[in-house]
Amino acid sequence: MRVVITGGAGFVGRKLAERLAKDGQLSGETIEELVLFDVVEPALPDAPFRVASRVGDISDPAQIAALIGGQTHTVFHLAAIVSGQAEAEFDTGMRINLDGTRTVLEACRKLARPAKLIFSSSVAVFGGEVPPVIQDDTALNPQTSYGAQKAASELLVTDYSRKGFVDGRALRLPTVVVRPGKPNRAASTFASSIIREPLQGDSAICPVGPEARMWIASPRAVLESLLHAHRLPAEAYGMNRAVTLPGLTVSIGEMVAALERVAGRAPVERIVWQKDPTIDRIVAGWCADFNAVRGPAMGFPTDSSMDAIIQAFIEDDMVTA
Amino acid sequence: MRVVITGGAGFVGRKLAERLAKDGQLSGETIEELVLFDVVEPALPDAPFRVASRVGDISDPAQIAALIGGQTHTVFHLAAIVSGQAEAEFDTGMRINLDGTRTVLEACRKLARPAKLIFSSSVAVFGGEVPPVIQDDTALNPQTSYGAQKAASELLVTDYSRKGFVDGRALRLPTVVVRPGKPNRAASTFASSIIREPLQGDSAICPVGPEARMWIASPRAVLESLLHAHRLPAEAYGMNRAVTLPGLTVSIGEMVAALERVAGRAPVERIVWQKDPTIDRIVAGWCADFNAVRGPAMGFPTDSSMDAIIQAFIEDDMVTA
Repeated sequence: MRVVITGGAGFVGRKLAERLAKDGQLSGETIEELVLFDVVEPALPDAPFRVASRVGDISDPAQIAALIGGQTHTVFHLAAIVSGQAEAEFDTGMRINLDGTRTVLEACRKLARPAKLIFSSSVAVFGGEVPPVIQDDTALNPQTSYGAQKAASELLVTDYSRKGFVDGRALRLPTVVVRPGKPNRAASTFASSIIREPLQGDSAICPVGPEARMWIASPRAVLESLLHAHRLPAEAYGMNRAVTLPGLTVSIGEMVAALERVAGRAPVERIVWQKDPTIDRIVAGWCADFNAVRGPAMGFPTDSSMDAIIQAFIEDDMVTA
Repeated sequence: MRVVITGGAGFVGRKLAERLAKDGQLSGETIEELVLFDVVEPALPDAPFRVASRVGDISDPAQIAALIGGQTHTVFHLAAIVSGQAEAEFDTGMRINLDGTRTVLEACRKLARPAKLIFSSSVAVFGGEVPPVIQDDTALNPQTSYGAQKAASELLVTDYSRKGFVDGRALRLPTVVVRPGKPNRAASTFASSIIREPLQGDSAICPVGPEARMWIASPRAVLESLLHAHRLPAEAYGMNRAVTLPGLTVSIGEMVAALERVAGRAPVERIVWQKDPTIDRIVAGWCADFNAVRGPAMGFPTDSSMDAIIQAFIEDDMVTA
């Protein structure tokens, strides 16, 4: 089996590549080749199969046709411009997030056998005048360009799948907490920073109040969900290829309380509470309460608690000086 | 005021152009110039203002920038490939329905003052596993490429509006009955044919049973809705620029009964009942029951009855030998 990961240098892409290298297979089929694609050189894991990297532009049809061509069986399409950057650089967001997905879909369409395509969408597709609790069939009304680009892409993934051009599966990821590494340009980046930086001995600014609430999932849950999405038969998705992943509704105050339970008082004191009106307004517009029935019914995993999420970060990703 | 109508040779575009010519104004502002754009030469109405036509490709950025450039105040973007053709010719549908809308949005974005953009979407954006009655906030899950392209376009109209690039308003048109002219490649075309052709003395095939149900609106209601959509202030649209227009839920049997009430037994006998399994299946997948609250609350008009719709066709559009 030939597997391609776009966004292979990102933290989810990297974790996925490492996991595939460790397992040597995907949904029970032996992997023969894994290709990691990104705008920067992705790290290659030690693997029992061929591993290669490609650096390029996800919106370039020729590059992506070459990347996905041949005997590609599976594409994990994770490449994206994050929300903050997509809002600041509208054209870049459209090009990478919407045209990039179309380029991937078109490359898949040209294959002799429809590839499985696992696409990372986002709960940023929800917004506007929503009911108090988001249902699986709540209308998508994104209030960011990132969300609009992801929502439009989801529609195309479903339509290309309906046409038989690809076997697509779009997962609406909750805000991923705790992300490893450095803060990025996602408006939600602080939610990881306020756990990660204090645990790693640094201070972190919290730009929202403790009452702010979010719908989150851990990197472990996201990784398992990507693999589960691949494993499920196409029929499990029915007439809509997009699934809202299970998550936890957690307030910033609850996150910090969990940090104290798991790691004591010292890290909590490294959090600097300093409201940023822009971030505060953006986060207040996010949907934090979901009645996600379809995802759990399809077997997608959920995190057990904020404490467990923090513990997993310590085990998997914490970098200490 | 400079007004552009894309799809100006289509029946809605033509009716709109004639109405603007008759009124000489739009939302109380005097029209100075009207430009009709289409792939075929549009007919120009006699008007108290300058009228011009352009023939071209809606997805060509240079042509559309030239069309919409300058002092354009309002664009009615009606150009589209209909559902049957978009399903049969996937690439054409993507290019005209999705890329064409992006091209229009981008041309509007380049204007010194954001234009008002009235975009004709469709209830084909709804589909899949829907509740028994479609609500205003039911998720879009189109089961045709036409619907997917319209749904993705709606998302972009809302996002471009949120960004201040355009003042967009997307109207989800019910199936328009009775369309004048000839049958087209829309899967719904028969719903007009079975009224129009018999009234005009011709026979028409009904490819579905009398129990099939549809959500419809008359050309008059659609025309008034386009004008009303323009008249409303931007704030009336709130955070979602797409509105499901009011309509009537009517079965084919009820349509035929209305035809008999309005025009007697003779036209009804010109209907040939001959099921087409493909059309029958498509129509069975359509949503016919809507609880459209937002549209009526915003003042969009509704037809009073199927009888009135047929009477209006006889007055406005019937062609007799």
